[in-house]
Amino acid sequence: MAEDVLPTWRHGPTRQSIIDFVRRTCGADGSAAVPVEERVAVFDNDGTLWCEKPMPIQVDFILRRLAEMLAAQPQLSERQPWKAVAERDFAWFSRVMAEHYAGDDTNVRTLGAGVLAAYAGISVEDFEQLSDDFLRSARHPTLGRGYLQCAYAPMIDLLDYLAAHGFTSYIASGGGRDFMRPISQDVYGIPRERVIGSSSTFAYTSDGKRGSITHQPEADYLDDGPEKPIRIWNRTGRRPLLAAGNSNGDVPMLEFTQHRDKPTLRLLVLHDDAEREFDYITGAEQALKRAETDGWTVVSVKNDWMTVF
Amino acid sequence: MAEDVLPTWRHGPTRQSIIDFVRRTCGADGSAAVPVEERVAVFDNDGTLWCEKPMPIQVDFILRRLAEMLAAQPQLSERQPWKAVAERDFAWFSRVMAEHYAGDDTNVRTLGAGVLAAYAGISVEDFEQLSDDFLRSARHPTLGRGYLQCAYAPMIDLLDYLAAHGFTSYIASGGGRDFMRPISQDVYGIPRERVIGSSSTFAYTSDGKRGSITHQPEADYLDDGPEKPIRIWNRTGRRPLLAAGNSNGDVPMLEFTQHRDKPTLRLLVLHDDAEREFDYITGAEQALKRAETDGWTVVSVKNDWMTVF
Repeated sequence: MAEDVLPTWRHGPTRQSIIDFVRRTCGADGSAAVPVEERVAVFDNDGTLWCEKPMPIQVDFILRRLAEMLAAQPQLSERQPWKAVAERDFAWFSRVMAEHYAGDDTNVRTLGAGVLAAYAGISVEDFEQLSDDFLRSARHPTLGRGYLQCAYAPMIDLLDYLAAHGFTSYIASGGGRDFMRPISQDVYGIPRERVIGSSSTFAYTSDGKRGSITHQPEADYLDDGPEKPIRIWNRTGRRPLLAAGNSNGDVPMLEFTQHRDKPTLRLLVLHDDAEREFDYITGAEQALKRAETDGWTVVSVKNDWMTVF
Repeated sequence: MAEDVLPTWRHGPTRQSIIDFVRRTCGADGSAAVPVEERVAVFDNDGTLWCEKPMPIQVDFILRRLAEMLAAQPQLSERQPWKAVAERDFAWFSRVMAEHYAGDDTNVRTLGAGVLAAYAGISVEDFEQLSDDFLRSARHPTLGRGYLQCAYAPMIDLLDYLAAHGFTSYIASGGGRDFMRPISQDVYGIPRERVIGSSSTFAYTSDGKRGSITHQPEADYLDDGPEKPIRIWNRTGRRPLLAAGNSNGDVPMLEFTQHRDKPTLRLLVLHDDAEREFDYITGAEQALKRAETDGWTVVSVKNDWMTVF
């Protein structure tokens, strides 16, 4: 029954557009059903599946690592990004992001180099343990809940609803793929092999008997903007039917989610609820414009979601 | 019943080692079963899942494309690899591969540049159509069968047997990922999202309304040697339980397939049947040595397979 589905979504045109799309995909409206193997949905993570304010969860993870490095090697305090950590100059990180949104990536590269250095040489198994420990224990700084409880309940409802209708959902995040993998099944019901995200390069080393894979201090790619559809293709070999995002970096992924002969749905989460979550559109201006001109479905946190977490 | 499984494999120690491994994985021998989501198996393609002689099937695909380019632009005949195509100098291709095995990749790079140029600018959908048309129509030059009938029946039996016991199998090929994808489900029962292989880089371009992904004349990576375990990690986030290969380029993948606390199986296909297929070990010398010192299971085409195709 339509009444039972998406229980955390308020009745209204947004919820209805999701239900209509799924009905069309399954042929419940009398049209030809899309074959199950083609029912691919892709979701941005930060700000789409879980909270990204006051800073993306992975940034907290990285800041703690930079602080550990600083404790072990105090002379790092002379260089960014450790300098900002040493001086508790969190405004530096905000400035770097503001510069990034303004098109200047000089300091983003400095920050990125620090982040990559922070995990250089670590094995993929040890990195997974670090991420898993952090995500299962650390708490959000203002929301009064653990990070894993910062996933949006309506999006988890949506993932469940899609799975029940034969969809295969992937996370297509600008964040670190291997950072999310240990918890994606428990939090979203998405297995690790369906997490697409940014990654460092790796090295394979062997002692002649056993081999291991270690993180290298170099970005393989940043899974954002036009890289998102490319990485989705690399992983899935499909053009998705549904894409959900919340920022300018998601525009190419949403645009790519388009077929001449199949139903598609593009969802853009609008953070407009200072009461229950956060209220911001910085970094989403172009996406909101495209939603208006191209008829993408804007999901208002305030109006469309019965509960947020 | 053990009698019913792997019907195209001759009874003997090789078939038994597969059955023992699967029984251990499933806990049928009284040990703890490996959770289903960890039952990952990886298979090289050329020479492991299908025939790679007298040349890898994709080489035939590429040679036809080079010939088409030559017909459209005859001046290409002054440059390799088109020169070799124009002069029907197939020995040049053999020399390039011999140099490659001897450690000299100068001409491999020339050949690679030609191959990449051959598909530059083509959309992923159009490339898929070219590959699909070729693979479903072209025939093997000496075996008297279509290319899709050059897959090894015992390996398809093995894939089925693993799937029936909760395994998720991936193709981890040095060949082109997008070349194999259109037929992997039909031939092997492996869906396109589980094909790992080499790839060119891609570009995402948008006209402001729609976006498309096109092949670029640059290799993203060659999925061979130490790159294989890295690409398997990138795609699956797992260390496999089973790996099957046939050449030196598969050694790191087989070596990586190792756990302290879980059953593993490493299979190396030995081509020793000039009667029914081909007889060669060139390019597999190191792998055969490792199989001997490390106890990997050598699969003799001649002795272990009841039928080849």
